Amino acid sequence: MTTEPTPLRDPRGSIALVGAGPGAADLLTLRALERIRAADLICYDRLVDPAVLAHARPEAERIYVGKEVGRHAWPQERICALITAAARAGRRVVRLKSGDPSIFGRAAEELAAARAAGVAVEIVPGITAASAAAAALGRPLTERGETDALVVATGMCRPGDDDPDWGALARAGCTVALYMAVGRLAEIREQMLASGVEADCEVEIVCAASTGREQVIRTVLGRLGAETQGVVAPAILLLRRPKRAAARLRCAG
Amino acid sequence: MTTEPTPLRDPRGSIALVGAGPGAADLLTLRALERIRAADLICYDRLVDPAVLAHARPEAERIYVGKEVGRHAWPQERICALITAAARAGRRVVRLKSGDPSIFGRAAEELAAARAAGVAVEIVPGITAASAAAAALGRPLTERGETDALVVATGMCRPGDDDPDWGALARAGCTVALYMAVGRLAEIREQMLASGVEADCEVEIVCAASTGREQVIRTVLGRLGAETQGVVAPAILLLRRPKRAAARLRCAG
Repeated sequence: MTTEPTPLRDPRGSIALVGAGPGAADLLTLRALERIRAADLICYDRLVDPAVLAHARPEAERIYVGKEVGRHAWPQERICALITAAARAGRRVVRLKSGDPSIFGRAAEELAAARAAGVAVEIVPGITAASAAAAALGRPLTERGETDALVVATGMCRPGDDDPDWGALARAGCTVALYMAVGRLAEIREQMLASGVEADCEVEIVCAASTGREQVIRTVLGRLGAETQGVVAPAILLLRRPKRAAARLRCAG
Repeated sequence: MTTEPTPLRDPRGSIALVGAGPGAADLLTLRALERIRAADLICYDRLVDPAVLAHARPEAERIYVGKEVGRHAWPQERICALITAAARAGRRVVRLKSGDPSIFGRAAEELAAARAAGVAVEIVPGITAASAAAAALGRPLTERGETDALVVATGMCRPGDDDPDWGALARAGCTVALYMAVGRLAEIREQMLASGVEADCEVEIVCAASTGREQVIRTVLGRLGAETQGVVAPAILLLRRPKRAAARLRCAG
């Protein structure tokens, strides 16, 4: 085993991959706020609250690189080229992402580009949507003796990759939080049921967690996707499969 | 499916279960800061940075309810009784927990107590330690095409409960983040290897993520626990089992 010190932040040009949190402007961390205030250039995604950007200096350049419905996003390579060139020119770059950059934030590509360019780069963590969804529900993601593990997965992988095996991920004793799942509700239901997940497992879908448009839809696995009125992206699907649900089924079976 | 509005925060006495984040005082959210500043009573855990408590009003009462080595923690029922009685007396109570209250934060007991007492209660989410560990490593928890799911589990369950089945949780395509695992490294290694997890899977242990005492130890599953110098709690263990590791093994087998 080797022990390595964490690298110092370069005082010259730099890139910070900053988590803007799940939506509400006040779920930003103090560190994220400081990086935004110090930035020369902010490249931001869809779903970032304008109130977050308002913390930037008036002279900071702001570039929207996110995706809107029906419009192409900036290709990842173009974002990487932009932020590394700016940092190499000595600018403090904030790459502002919704949620936590480390969880479905496509941080790997930008970290690799920064390192290849010899540019100092850091991750500033943010509140991920699953935590905000739990707060919206007033119910934790783990409960002792019921759900001892949290599984965070997606409803959609990279084109060409296999779908996640949602049923296998939803083991007894787990809470499953699915991101980007609203278009796949019927497939998720069928695959989970086929894997033996109980039809009466509680499912909650939290749309736009932490924002003024927040909405909670409660159902059970067996009815998931049957009525999807009100389910709009961005949304988090939470499925609870407590230990006792599986045990009860074993006793009855 | 039913759609429910989220409850308003009670302007009278109230309880906020507030996530203090992983350790660094500047990884507090703006909302957490606001709740701490407005609090009449703050009940805080071990691992909460004194700089976080320094945001409280001078007249706010501070009660340490956490556990120190060799000393008993406050029993959970006593914490529940204290915070509900204070809120019913009209005080704004902050129950300050390290990390995110929804992830291994024992929030369920306190939420239930507040509701039973008819007291307004909310969760203010915090940065969980896994996110801080990823930031420390400069490497995300999910990488497209490699690790499409994140599994958050513990090294230790409630006394009397079975251990988590770490090997079953560590499916191909997952990053596994284990909390409270430093005392169980050899058992985790043996159970994962017995489940077929590859011995060369990368393991990183991040001690005291985000603090001045942060330390990173890198190894592989097959050597986990063989040398544990420098591993001190609190720590997060991250194991990556990329899809291609399992595929490579299938090709070779």
